[in-house]
Amino acid sequence: MKVVNQNIQIDGIDKQILRALMEDARTPILEIARNVGISGAAIHQRLRKLEKSKLISGSKFIIDAQVLGYTTMAFIGIYLDKAVSNPEAVKQLKKIPEVLECHYTTGNWSIFIKILCKDNSHLMYLLNKEIQSIPGVSRTETFISLQQQIDRQIAI
Amino acid sequence: MKVVNQNIQIDGIDKQILRALMEDARTPILEIARNVGISGAAIHQRLRKLEKSKLISGSKFIIDAQVLGYTTMAFIGIYLDKAVSNPEAVKQLKKIPEVLECHYTTGNWSIFIKILCKDNSHLMYLLNKEIQSIPGVSRTETFISLQQQIDRQIAI
Amino acid sequence: MKVVNQNIQIDGIDKQILRALMEDARTPILEIARNVGISGAAIHQRLRKLEKSKLISGSKFIIDAQVLGYTTMAFIGIYLDKAVSNPEAVKQLKKIPEVLECHYTTGNWSIFIKILCKDNSHLMYLLNKEIQSIPGVSRTETFISLQQQIDRQIAI
Amino acid sequence: MKVVNQNIQIDGIDKQILRALMEDARTPILEIARNVGISGAAIHQRLRKLEKSKLISGSKFIIDAQVLGYTTMAFIGIYLDKAVSNPEAVKQLKKIPEVLECHYTTGNWSIFIKILCKDNSHLMYLLNKEIQSIPGVSRTETFISLQQQIDRQIAI
Amino acid sequence: MKVVNQNIQIDGIDKQILRALMEDARTPILEIARNVGISGAAIHQRLRKLEKSKLISGSKFIIDAQVLGYTTMAFIGIYLDKAVSNPEAVKQLKKIPEVLECHYTTGNWSIFIKILCKDNSHLMYLLNKEIQSIPGVSRTETFISLQQQIDRQIAI
Amino acid sequence: MKVVNQNIQIDGIDKQILRALMEDARTPILEIARNVGISGAAIHQRLRKLEKSKLISGSKFIIDAQVLGYTTMAFIGIYLDKAVSNPEAVKQLKKIPEVLECHYTTGNWSIFIKILCKDNSHLMYLLNKEIQSIPGVSRTETFISLQQQIDRQIAI
Amino acid sequence: MKVVNQNIQIDGIDKQILRALMEDARTPILEIARNVGISGAAIHQRLRKLEKSKLISGSKFIIDAQVLGYTTMAFIGIYLDKAVSNPEAVKQLKKIPEVLECHYTTGNWSIFIKILCKDNSHLMYLLNKEIQSIPGVSRTETFISLQQQIDRQIAI
Amino acid sequence: MKVVNQNIQIDGIDKQILRALMEDARTPILEIARNVGISGAAIHQRLRKLEKSKLISGSKFIIDAQVLGYTTMAFIGIYLDKAVSNPEAVKQLKKIPEVLECHYTTGNWSIFIKILCKDNSHLMYLLNKEIQSIPGVSRTETFISLQQQIDRQIAI
Repeated sequence: MKVVNQNIQIDGIDKQILRALMEDARTPILEIARNVGISGAAIHQRLRKLEKSKLISGSKFIIDAQVLGYTTMAFIGIYLDKAVSNPEAVKQLKKIPEVLECHYTTGNWSIFIKILCKDNSHLMYLLNKEIQSIPGVSRTETFISLQQQIDRQIAI
Repeated sequence: MKVVNQNIQIDGIDKQILRALMEDARTPILEIARNVGISGAAIHQRLRKLEKSKLISGSKFIIDAQVLGYTTMAFIGIYLDKAVSNPEAVKQLKKIPEVLECHYTTGNWSIFIKILCKDNSHLMYLLNKEIQSIPGVSRTETFISLQQQIDRQIAI
Repeated sequence: MKVVNQNIQIDGIDKQILRALMEDARTPILEIARNVGISGAAIHQRLRKLEKSKLISGSKFIIDAQVLGYTTMAFIGIYLDKAVSNPEAVKQLKKIPEVLECHYTTGNWSIFIKILCKDNSHLMYLLNKEIQSIPGVSRTETFISLQQQIDRQIAI
Repeated sequence: MKVVNQNIQIDGIDKQILRALMEDARTPILEIARNVGISGAAIHQRLRKLEKSKLISGSKFIIDAQVLGYTTMAFIGIYLDKAVSNPEAVKQLKKIPEVLECHYTTGNWSIFIKILCKDNSHLMYLLNKEIQSIPGVSRTETFISLQQQIDRQIAI
Repeated sequence: MKVVNQNIQIDGIDKQILRALMEDARTPILEIARNVGISGAAIHQRLRKLEKSKLISGSKFIIDAQVLGYTTMAFIGIYLDKAVSNPEAVKQLKKIPEVLECHYTTGNWSIFIKILCKDNSHLMYLLNKEIQSIPGVSRTETFISLQQQIDRQIAI
Repeated sequence: MKVVNQNIQIDGIDKQILRALMEDARTPILEIARNVGISGAAIHQRLRKLEKSKLISGSKFIIDAQVLGYTTMAFIGIYLDKAVSNPEAVKQLKKIPEVLECHYTTGNWSIFIKILCKDNSHLMYLLNKEIQSIPGVSRTETFISLQQQIDRQIAI
Repeated sequence: MKVVNQNIQIDGIDKQILRALMEDARTPILEIARNVGISGAAIHQRLRKLEKSKLISGSKFIIDAQVLGYTTMAFIGIYLDKAVSNPEAVKQLKKIPEVLECHYTTGNWSIFIKILCKDNSHLMYLLNKEIQSIPGVSRTETFISLQQQIDRQIAI
Repeated sequence: MKVVNQNIQIDGIDKQILRALMEDARTPILEIARNVGISGAAIHQRLRKLEKSKLISGSKFIIDAQVLGYTTMAFIGIYLDKAVSNPEAVKQLKKIPEVLECHYTTGNWSIFIKILCKDNSHLMYLLNKEIQSIPGVSRTETFISLQQQIDRQIAI
């Protein structure tokens, strides 16, 4: 497990800076500086501190996968038999680019994944040809997200 | 449903630009320009085109919630009774900042959410005080992610 | 329950006639007559007998609903509470034209339906606005047919 | 997936013609012509257009299987193990004439079929001797339709 | 709970007598006496002792319900809501003559019954009109016995 | 399936005779004759007719198994794998005298049995040593009858 | 949540003392002292330190409930409806002395309890009269422990 | 099964002594004697009698495992396949010190255990490396106790 710096202290100004950049990572530093009321250099200093604390893990352009035709999100609970260990199955799942999340969960599934497909036919193809053919996958339970109604990071 | 521009054409240069910015949204444009071998102005022009096509939906600083002490991710299947409609329940769920995703899914749950908590006690508090007290929530099924093994965007 | 004439006897010629018309209801009688080797009048006489026996329940043009944009078939198990009797719920379901079949089944559902929707969004709309709002429907379990691989009448 | 002509336009007269023939495929064209108020030749021309658009996929005599003694309809969810691929199992199911529908579905079954049997004994025979003996079928869940309350095509 | 005489001792001769009468309650006492090799009076004395010990709870003609047209045996798991106590629901079930057994079981059902019906239509009628209309019955799960392969008393 | 004589006609006097003997198989014929108001010879004649119709399948002494210490009744759903056919598994179950009933049922179990044990320890022994060791038994689901509240034959 | 002293350090001698007393709380201190090879006063001093650290939460005589006739241990998953909050239901469960453990768990139950009863009849009484009559308890799932094969504290 | 002395008689004074020692096993005998109002010798005599009757099965120091960092209690239902018998699997489970209880239960699991882990990561490690690698374990279902609300012995 990751070693976490439990002494991290973030004040109100840190939060203002972070909220601006969590909203839009390319917001100009000088604009944030103006809004917060401190110098751009102070912003840079605080960002370095936050990066050092590992609170900021990076920044990303977010792609709208629907524009590329990916309109069907599904969740799949996977049962493994003894022929494969969990890490080996995960290694195979990583090779399927449509698998966006993979979790080891309590409950009755061995592995729980989130998958993004072009449409229901594509989902069927991935289930039938990619996922169920992984050695050790004995059974899957699929449910489709008909609509995603919340999608956000933790608030700070 | 969102109207999607199905005629979007992205070429190899677009992909190189996007991959750089999906990796790190604050990569300097000039650095990308140098690597790709076209001018910064051309990069800006392509980015404007990609934003207009809505393929780029934004950019975000990514916070490592573990550093803030959020170490327990859970999934909760929620059964609604007739006292509340789906949109009303979702409205209440939006007020709980720990609820990061909310889906309307096939299968036997009415609503399926992803939630990020500080620890198991915090999860119990949220279940007991916040979620199960939403009018119309009749029953919940929780499973905890003991480890997230894949977390990524769709590849382009 | 329908009173069934258990003494119906169909011979090989009846079967040849029926198979031709089960394949294509508009096959000219004279063509069938030619193939089977009896007169058109004899065909007409046999068809009258088969209709009288109620073995032929009708003939139908079959529409390819996919051409009209109906691409998502789903099955829904419905749990009823005591607020509504089965016949009342079925009466409401009949008003939803996308509900193609409705069964009273053993197992754990009160009602089991087959539904044909334009897409996943349409399915969500029907579930949320049409089906779950029927008085007495307490819960539904949906599963989507990703591909229909067999679709036929009983062989004769 | 079938290529669908998405530009199909059907007007009110097309619908009147189709409804008559979906009700009874052998309705005389001249009778339809009289009711709709256009010439028989115009009807024929429209039918050719609709067939070309693939909206009309055919016409069938409908047999009342109850008259042949088929009184028990059941649904069977089938779990496959790794010994057989989905297409191979479907190939075996096609050889059983009582299997009227076969679907690849989301949820927890690998295959979902509709089956029409003479009676409960016949169902048991089919389960025990025909379906469970298909290589790769590891388990089945059967539920019987005690009454079919809706059975129709999509409305147009 | 019934007070049981735990000191009951049955010897080999008791067992011979009982097996004969468990097979056919109307076996003449003298025939048993002859086979066992003791006097008829001794048989009578032993039967009185066994009846006094309550080991013999009675004797019954067994009717073959299939001859009366009862061909469908089913098991039904019943969920009760709080509107009715278990004894009240059982009182209502006793009024339905087709209910042959009723158990209070561990597991997830409140009540578990065995029911004997004429056919699937009769089962549907009983479920819909008699059982699900008992106040407090919230849901039922039915499964049909396609064939009873063992039916006997405990061996002695 | 057993061939059933569907023309059996039983009148009110037959019913009176049967009810008396279903209650107590050793009721003297002359006592029944007196109560019903016909001669003993007529009773004998009617019984012969009812036996010939196979409506009476026999008569049995009923043993109170609790007196022998059998106090725990349980139901067990059995899943079979492909290593054994249903008839072979049933043959093994027949050798376990505590198995009183065995059914081939719809739903998710392959076999469903009723078993009568001395106590919970005995049940565990039977599950562990006798039932789960039958070749092909892959899994069992047990539920205990905490109280049997109805136990009777079909009413006539 | 209890505040835990995370700096607790226990050495090999502490462990020897604890193991002796976890085995038998009434072991004379002098006997432990002799075995460990330090003075009785030193043992007392270490025990005071361990008690202060809250590692020792107490000592108990352990009663063998089987001797009092409690032979049936069961686990019960309880579903609550909205009529009662979790703490109120727990308050009612505390009044039932046979309830030995009560947990708020992930998964599909609201409350999960361990219960110790005299026999199956007693279990039925408790379910029917005590547990299911708690306001807000909508449904229970019971499973009986046929044999407890491990029962111990965490090793130190 | 353990032979139980069913003639044990405990009076009010026995109960007072037991309650004191069940609360705190190290309560001085003389203090109990004073409170109960009999001599210390009489207490010792009664304790010898209770130990002989096996009602007192021992006394234990109770360790607060949370102080050692064990904060996550979980229950795991284990499905066994035919490769291993129940006793062999239990033998392996005994080697895992975090397994505090193990039961052979009715319902759908083969084995049901209580496990105490340091945290969710530790639980995952135990599931993945220790439990699921036991030969014959085919599948597990885990649920976490978010809070233990009752923990006590049977009242006397």
